[in-house]
Amino acid sequence: MRTFPQCLPCLMDQAVRNLQRLPESVHEPFLRRCLQFLAGADYRLSPPQLARTVFDLMEEYTGERDPYQEEKAFSNRFVSSMEEELRQLIMHSHDPFVTALKLAITGNIIDLGVNRDFSHHDLAEEIRRAIELPLSPEAIERLRQAVDHAQRILYLADNCGEIVFDKLFLEQLPEERITLAVRGEPVLNDVTPRDLAHLSLPPGLRLIDNGTNYPGTVLQFCSPEFLECWQQADLIIAKGQGNFETLEGENKHIFFLLKAKCTVVARFLGCNLGEPVIHEQVPE
Amino acid sequence: MRTFPQCLPCLMDQAVRNLQRLPESVHEPFLRRCLQFLAGADYRLSPPQLARTVFDLMEEYTGERDPYQEEKAFSNRFVSSMEEELRQLIMHSHDPFVTALKLAITGNIIDLGVNRDFSHHDLAEEIRRAIELPLSPEAIERLRQAVDHAQRILYLADNCGEIVFDKLFLEQLPEERITLAVRGEPVLNDVTPRDLAHLSLPPGLRLIDNGTNYPGTVLQFCSPEFLECWQQADLIIAKGQGNFETLEGENKHIFFLLKAKCTVVARFLGCNLGEPVIHEQVPE
Repeated sequence: MRTFPQCLPCLMDQAVRNLQRLPESVHEPFLRRCLQFLAGADYRLSPPQLARTVFDLMEEYTGERDPYQEEKAFSNRFVSSMEEELRQLIMHSHDPFVTALKLAITGNIIDLGVNRDFSHHDLAEEIRRAIELPLSPEAIERLRQAVDHAQRILYLADNCGEIVFDKLFLEQLPEERITLAVRGEPVLNDVTPRDLAHLSLPPGLRLIDNGTNYPGTVLQFCSPEFLECWQQADLIIAKGQGNFETLEGENKHIFFLLKAKCTVVARFLGCNLGEPVIHEQVPE
Repeated sequence: MRTFPQCLPCLMDQAVRNLQRLPESVHEPFLRRCLQFLAGADYRLSPPQLARTVFDLMEEYTGERDPYQEEKAFSNRFVSSMEEELRQLIMHSHDPFVTALKLAITGNIIDLGVNRDFSHHDLAEEIRRAIELPLSPEAIERLRQAVDHAQRILYLADNCGEIVFDKLFLEQLPEERITLAVRGEPVLNDVTPRDLAHLSLPPGLRLIDNGTNYPGTVLQFCSPEFLECWQQADLIIAKGQGNFETLEGENKHIFFLLKAKCTVVARFLGCNLGEPVIHEQVPE
């Protein structure tokens, strides 16, 4: 997806929301450089690609390459504390695949990294709502059949916290046919190999990273190992808006599982802002 | 008020929301020039001053100096259609001064120019709520006393539509001691002399414009006539956020009547976002 006019104030807003991580003396030069960069940027690139340069500028001032490290660990611990409860919920549900899928999409809804006040009770409430998510039954069935027929499935993860829900969904999928891919280097609260340390993923699962630090999947910069996996996969399951923004339009069979977090993406998908979505992209 | 970091995405958002008024072919160059301008702007200036340059860039592409002309006329007609009803409401209320004041602040709450779907019914509902506005009784009394004691009151108007509410409030004030000031040239949906044509203001009221096209009151560029009025006034009543942003900190006795429409101004005033406010500024 290209960068739309509405993405420009939003990218600046991301810069502003991260100011607290910078010494006050550099706030102004940092903001001016972000504006300068956006003034000359290539809008045919996706918003996560432009966002990356904003984060690069921030790193330059702080020297901090993983500013969300603590939040990420917190999110993982927080959701992990409910893991067994969630697993029971899935196992005893009418259709464990559907329940696990809904929870995996819920994982994208809850932005735990952002809100520390989010309690165990709030999460339980979100989960209760998740089970009632108005997802298209046709889309769910198409995904189920695609999973059944695919030889090699590439599952693209998104954020920490959310990854615990992904893990539970992955337990419902044929693990011997799945490769789980995370980001190669830290960016925002996205999952990297290091963030998987305490999560005990299904042992048969193949795990790779994409070799980049974009908050999405920018194929042209991904590692050869990732690209080989990408080419060999006959089905991609891609979590989150960053993966949608960077992979929309690729000639691949992709199921995007996400919450439409901005008006640009919601309009693109023809859904309401904040709506949970299963969006199937069929290759030509 | 200076331009805060949070104002930068907001100024870009104003640019984006006005794109529909520009031919699509110039959207990209226009946005790039806005970003370029903001990258090098003087952030000690107030947001309305920077916004003016964004509007100047837009005018350059459209040649249109009064793009909100139609919306402004609509807003004035719309509120005027309820004028007599509102006057009766004020006259028969327990305290006409307070009721008219609350309605005048409500005028700043309703952004009629923006939402054409806003119906007569919606306005009636807003008005009902206005009467219950949680305004500080102390602030109301201080304003009443200031009006009683002032020799020359300068009343700074804000938007079309809102001006009809102002007119009803002005009827509660000593018209022989009041000068009503509007913007000198069109900007957004702000009132200019031309927009007053069909409003039949109190006949004793002196009317001036400030000689500028800023969406606020930027004293350094105002006309000598306005500045003389400003200097002679011992009380200023200033409507709306634009007047607050440009006059906050001036060494004058000012009552700002506004709704805090953004987090920067709300934090500045120590109120909640969207809250109606009477903010008194006392000279040193």
